[in-house]
Formats: sequence, structure tokens, C-alpha cells
Amino acid sequence: MNISEKTKTLLAGSSVIRKLFEEGREMAAVVGEKNVYDFSLGNPFVSPPKKVKESILRLVDEKEPGYLHGYMKNAGYDEVRSAVAESLNRRFEMHYQPNNIIMTVGAAGGLTCIFSSLLNPDDEVVCFAPYFGEYRSYVMNFYGKLVVVPADTRDFQPNLEELDSLIHEKTKVLLINNPNNPSGVIYSRESLIRLQEILEQAERRIGHAICVVSDEPYRELAYDGAEVPYMPKYIKNCIVCYSFSKSLSLPGERIGYMAISPDIESCQEIEDALIVSNRALGYINAPSLFQLVVKDCLEEKVNVDIYDKNRRLLYESLTAMGFTCVKPQGAFYMLVKSPVANEQDFVNEGKKHHIIMVSTSSFGCPGYVRLAYCIPYETIERSLPAFQKLAETYFNE
Amino acid sequence: MNISEKTKTLLAGSSVIRKLFEEGREMAAVVGEKNVYDFSLGNPFVSPPKKVKESILRLVDEKEPGYLHGYMKNAGYDEVRSAVAESLNRRFEMHYQPNNIIMTVGAAGGLTCIFSSLLNPDDEVVCFAPYFGEYRSYVMNFYGKLVVVPADTRDFQPNLEELDSLIHEKTKVLLINNPNNPSGVIYSRESLIRLQEILEQAERRIGHAICVVSDEPYRELAYDGAEVPYMPKYIKNCIVCYSFSKSLSLPGERIGYMAISPDIESCQEIEDALIVSNRALGYINAPSLFQLVVKDCLEEKVNVDIYDKNRRLLYESLTAMGFTCVKPQGAFYMLVKSPVANEQDFVNEGKKHHIIMVSTSSFGCPGYVRLAYCIPYETIERSLPAFQKLAETYFNE
Repeated sequence: MNISEKTKTLLAGSSVIRKLFEEGREMAAVVGEKNVYDFSLGNPFVSPPKKVKESILRLVDEKEPGYLHGYMKNAGYDEVRSAVAESLNRRFEMHYQPNNIIMTVGAAGGLTCIFSSLLNPDDEVVCFAPYFGEYRSYVMNFYGKLVVVPADTRDFQPNLEELDSLIHEKTKVLLINNPNNPSGVIYSRESLIRLQEILEQAERRIGHAICVVSDEPYRELAYDGAEVPYMPKYIKNCIVCYSFSKSLSLPGERIGYMAISPDIESCQEIEDALIVSNRALGYINAPSLFQLVVKDCLEEKVNVDIYDKNRRLLYESLTAMGFTCVKPQGAFYMLVKSPVANEQDFVNEGKKHHIIMVSTSSFGCPGYVRLAYCIPYETIERSLPAFQKLAETYFNE
Repeated sequence: MNISEKTKTLLAGSSVIRKLFEEGREMAAVVGEKNVYDFSLGNPFVSPPKKVKESILRLVDEKEPGYLHGYMKNAGYDEVRSAVAESLNRRFEMHYQPNNIIMTVGAAGGLTCIFSSLLNPDDEVVCFAPYFGEYRSYVMNFYGKLVVVPADTRDFQPNLEELDSLIHEKTKVLLINNPNNPSGVIYSRESLIRLQEILEQAERRIGHAICVVSDEPYRELAYDGAEVPYMPKYIKNCIVCYSFSKSLSLPGERIGYMAISPDIESCQEIEDALIVSNRALGYINAPSLFQLVVKDCLEEKVNVDIYDKNRRLLYESLTAMGFTCVKPQGAFYMLVKSPVANEQDFVNEGKKHHIIMVSTSSFGCPGYVRLAYCIPYETIERSLPAFQKLAETYFNE
């Protein structure tokens, strides 16, 4: 029995990360769990806000099970869509209507609906490097093509200079991740204003609108009082894909939404297409109980200070040791520049000290490694002598 | 902004059912909710077993939130996969290993993973009419082609006589729904034994194995002591897609699994492909809390007597009035033969009496209507005078 060609490609690509994870496990079996410093996985570890549990208990107690666990419209419960729209309108001075909100199986479920709804085979999705590696799979599902704008490694803002030349007639979507995984950088208001200008020009040139998709699972994870500009305030044809995975530490529950800008071109048709895709892709609807839970918790978030403390320790320690780091402003990732040309050698050198780091080649931006600092503070503390030894390999000769 | 060609087709097809539903709503606004007899939707209405609520409360109380709501392997929690395998092995004398079980976002999520994993564009999925209309969308997502074996309207068993001639080199999957939606018929052991013989012959002829996918959301809804044969006991290359939507009345929670026969050709590769598809399609994993809830409730099911009582009332009343009905053995649907050649005329005539029935043309089997009897007994009782008037249109002249 033959699997599809597309799936063969997916399997080949996916084995890299699995291998890294397994290496970490094998290492732990030999040297002990406490002596392995695994910075590979972006898995939220801070507890959900107390209100999550309270909400589950209240809902199970108060609501009819037929309502709580039953089918609703494919777009989600009306009460949830209304609450999300109101919350976004209040927080970001938007004017969403409830029908602009479609509840989804996480942000990834939203992205997949969008690509299925918009892409014909060979249509192109443009994204800025560095980018979340899974984007390639999401686009490949529907025989689209991911086009990567090379990273601007000066400040990791989107590389607007090179964008225009990569937009063609086949370009349907521009996919943006803000705050960015893997860089931890927040795209600035200035970048977004300039981006809209470039898009308008390009749209006139190619004769059709480009849908800008803002993937924002890390929106609530911003540090030093940094503002994450709300994309649809600057970009006209914008769909926000949001997930509660990080803000409420509920990644396993698969709950998020799409917010379709009321100003988007062909708004009604886009909404209808996304809803029918949500059904046709077998999601049918976002999980029902957790739709109602997140409605209760729209103003809640996890204790971001825990991530912030990790961030400061890691950034300050590693820069003091001589590493060049990209200062993270959001999310829970930090890029470290490889001290040698081929960052895979740096990754391998790290393993000798039981440090598991991810090469950024799979994020479309070679020459760096990504550290996910969503791990206990104590683990980071314990890793520092190992990083020190790693630094000495390169900087003290 | 243009939506994809595929999505245009989906939208055109989906409007039929929505229109029917909206007509019912409009009707209710005019003549009153109680005077509309809506048999259109297959929405479970019996309460979940008590243990569902107990399990949620216990889990929320006892488990670490990082475990309860966190990421696990894309295939699901190990403890859940083990429990499902054990339960199937015990109930059906199978020999599943935990890694043969992949938890999915409902049965529809499993079907979508399978089609993405196996189909190259233009590959064919064969199914027996009448078939669940959404199958067409699931296959279309990946540019596959649904090939329909015409119904055997003598007994609504799978039409094995016409199957062989529809299997070609492009045939990758045979998709079976048992108990069947819309007919309510259970495919017999004899049918499945003969099916395996035909498949073996066909596989030799076309030179590759065919994956038989058994979509079984209605497995637990069987009446009069009828046995639903366990497909993998008779069919070698079989994947079962199961959902707890009907057995536990949890359709909104999107929880199910795939059970991959340990005997399937290229078992390991198929499993790997399905797991990577589960991730790449944005499901990532089945919702975490409800994975653990269904683990607690594997031996539970809703009170099927409620559906059975509806079934008997409807079947006995309508046949007594002169309608020709297909006696349902499982699920919660019944087919009624249209008394006139074009069943759309029958549907329209029904509306005059405020009876909402679904034409079976969209199930690949014109000439009938489907009645979904998952509605209150009282509604069926109240509908009988309306059905009597409808019968008089045709049988008393």
C-alpha cells in the first residue's frame, strides 16, 4: 500500500525533530534526566490561570450536556463568537461583528482552513524568514508553494526590501507570525505600515488582493512592556489566526479562532469559504466545552513573569559568555548566532555538553540555533556551566 | 480575493442542506416550533452517560493541568491508546497494539488524515451508495475522486456485483459506513466475507493493495440484538475510524480514533503517515481532556432504547400508512421510498405538511428520503397526523 507522494515528503522532513527529541531521551537515560538541558520544544509549562478550572467546573455543573457537548454551527457558538468580537473590539479598537469570528481547532486548524479555502494547486504563500517550520506542511497539504523572503538578520524585522520581487500573479497569501517563532522578535508598527504600502502597490501590479494571515499564538507573551501591534489596524486584507495554547496553557485542547477583518475584500465569501472548509476538513467545529471555557477566560492569561525571568537569565548569561543572541521581545524562544559557519556543528558541539538546541535551517534562516526557554528556571540555571564550557570551545583559545 | 475552485464547488454543494434547515426555521417562525417536524439533522439528542460528567470532574480534580491540557504525542496519550487497544481486543478478539491506535478529532478527522496520507491527485476512493454526503468533500480536499457503486435497493447490502468493475489502478481506498447512514442497514458478515474475496482478486489484477476504511460512528447504535460485524475480522487491509459522537453523545467535543489493523500491508509506514498527517493537517492531536474522558467511558454508551422506541414508532406507523420503508437495524436514520418518481416532489409535498425530509440524491441513491429519528418521541407522535395526510396524497385516491 503506497502512501501519497506529499506524505513521503512530510515524513522525510518530520524525522529531523523527532530524531533530536529521541537523542535527548537517550542522553537522559545515560547521564540522568537532570543533566540534559533540552531547549528543543516549544511546549508551554506555566500553569493555566485558575479560572480555567473554575470555568470547567461551572459549565459542567450548570449547562445542559446537549448544549455543552453538542453540535453547534460549524463556525462555533454564537455566544462565544460575540464575546470574542467584543473583546477584540474593546482591546484593539476594532469593529468586528460576531460573524467575523470563526472558532477553530487551534491556530493551526485556522491556517489549514485558510489554505484550503484560498489555494489552487501551485498558488503561492509568501512568508518571512525565519518562519515556523510547520508552515511548509500546512501549505503542502493543498499543493501550494511556500515562498520564503530571506531574513533581515540586522534586526529580524520583516525583510520588506526583498518582498516585492517575490510577489507574482500566483501569490495568494502573505503569512506572518508575530511575535515571531523562532526569533522572539515583535514586528513593529513601522514595519506594518510600510508593509501595507508595499502590498497595495504589488496588488495593483498583479491585479488581485493578497490575503495577509497573521498567526498570533504568542500575542500575550510580550516582555518589557512591548506592544504587539494589532495587524488588522495596519493591514487591510487581514485574517488573524489565534490560539489559546500559550496564553492559557491549553495546547492539548486545540482551541483558537480566526478573526476576519470586516474590511477584507469579499468578506462574506471568505467567511462562507472558511466555514465550509472547517466542516469539509473534518474539524466540523472547535471543541465545544473549551469554546465556552475560553469565553469565560478571554481576559485571563498565564503568569508571563515566569517566562520573562527565564528570558532574562538566558539572554544575560549567554551574552556575558560571549555568544551573540537576538534579544527576545516576545514568545519563549531565543536565537543564538552560531560561532561557526555551519550551525549544525554548533548543535553537535552543544550535544557533547548535553545541551539540545535546534538548528534554524528548518526555519529558513541558517547560521543560528533556537533555544526554547519554556522550561523550569532551575534547568536553565543548571545548564549555565554547560553553556560556559561550550563558550570556551569558541571564545577562549 | 478569489477562493479556490475546490471551495467554490464545496460551497455550491453545501447550500442545499443549509437551505433545508433554514426553511424549517422559517416555517417554525410562522406556524410555531411545535408544528414543524424536522427529520433533517443527525444530531444525537440522548444525554451522555452519567460517567462522562463524573470523569470530567475527577480528571480536573486529580490531574496536573500540564498533563490534562498539554501536548502529548501527535497520536495521543499512551494510556488512552493502550486502553482503546485492550478494549477492542477484548470485545472483538483482535490483537491491536497501542501503537495501532491513533486518537483523532472525531471520525471525520481520521478520514481526512487517511485521505491526505494515501491519495495523490486523481486517485480514487470507492464507496457504496447510499453514502454519507460529506465523503465527497473529504475526498475532494486532496483532489481525489469519489467513485460510487450504485445501491442495491433490494436489501441495501453493499452492491458487490458491481464493485469489481469499478476498481482500477487508481483505486486506493474502499470506504464503508457500517451501520449505514442514510439507510440504517447493517452490512452482514456474509457481505464482508464475500467482499474480502472480491478485493483479493481485484488487488491481484491491479497490482496493489486497497485500503478498506470502515467509518463506524454508529457501531453502538444497533437494535433487536443485531450484531455489527467487526470489519477487520473479515477484511485484511482495514482501518476503522471511530467516533464517540453518537455512543457517548459528545459530537461537539470532536473525539474519536483510528484503529489500524496489525495485519495491514506496510503497517508501520501507514501509521507513521497517519500520525504526520494528523500534525500537518493542523489537528496536532485529538483534544486532550476528552481523550482521557473517553478512556474512562470505553464500556459506556447512551441509552439506545430511546432511539429504538423512536425507530419502532416511525417504522410501524409509516408502513401502516402505506409507505415503503427500509427497516433500520442501526444508526438513527430510516429511508422511505418516494411514492413518486422524483423524490424532490415528495420532499416538497412533505413541506406542505411541515415535515422536513432529506432527499437521498445527495447520498448517491435517488428515489428515497431520509428521516433522522434522533428527535423527541413526542415530536414523532405529533408528526403522525401530518404523515397520514401526506400518505393520503398518494395512496387514497
